[in-house]
Amino acid sequence: MIEMTPIGRVESPLTELKGVPKQGDEGAPDALLVIEPSYADALEGLLAGQEIIVLTWLDRADREVLQVYPRGDKSRGLQGVFNTRSPARPNPIGLHRVTIQSIEGTTIKVNNMEAVDGTPILDVKPALTAIDER
Amino acid sequence: MIEMTPIGRVESPLTELKGVPKQGDEGAPDALLVIEPSYADALEGLLAGQEIIVLTWLDRADREVLQVYPRGDKSRGLQGVFNTRSPARPNPIGLHRVTIQSIEGTTIKVNNMEAVDGTPILDVKPALTAIDER
Repeated sequence: MIEMTPIGRVESPLTELKGVPKQGDEGAPDALLVIEPSYADALEGLLAGQEIIVLTWLDRADREVLQVYPRGDKSRGLQGVFNTRSPARPNPIGLHRVTIQSIEGTTIKVNNMEAVDGTPILDVKPALTAIDER
Repeated sequence: MIEMTPIGRVESPLTELKGVPKQGDEGAPDALLVIEPSYADALEGLLAGQEIIVLTWLDRADREVLQVYPRGDKSRGLQGVFNTRSPARPNPIGLHRVTIQSIEGTTIKVNNMEAVDGTPILDVKPALTAIDER
């Protein structure tokens, strides 16, 4: 068994699962990543304009289902959840590629975040740049 | 507290942390994703040639450290772990973008996998395609 503790939570105008865009680039709103103050040192170096990967815990997802109709479209047939981006999966970790708009203290404003208000945040990573810039 | 159960493990010729490439595109070897047979249905639709994102649990990582020298280079100054790809972080989830070479049963052969032998696997997702192909 693996145990994780959220490092913070998403604050978003999205409050219901219904109507949440399926991916950030499909019209998701700006949101705040409210990181626990105890992790302030871990944010050192992050800057506005930077692209980051946010990992979230999709705590409302069904963890038992192994197959779904992608995007609810029954004409496409059932697919294994590992071949879809559905939140339904054994370990429902959300993956969000967003751009930092601003940072105030340990709160990060980002664009295009498709997660409902209150979603726990597990990790933040910089998006990878070209090999010679790492 | 969030609890996860691994869906499988990595089989890799990499057995020691020392010398593991820092990213998959920096010379990491082929590896096997040995998924538990009980998740066979969840793999339905995955095909050789497809690009996937593998999420792993970096179980040897230090979860207490909040700042590191990126890539061990002290000339660059200490950075917050959320601004690095270091395995050291509060929730050490590894993110690997790889291509499926072949699938046999519930074992997936992939290229460029920078994870040591035995690393637990948390999730597999398809890499996102262009919006109009989803």
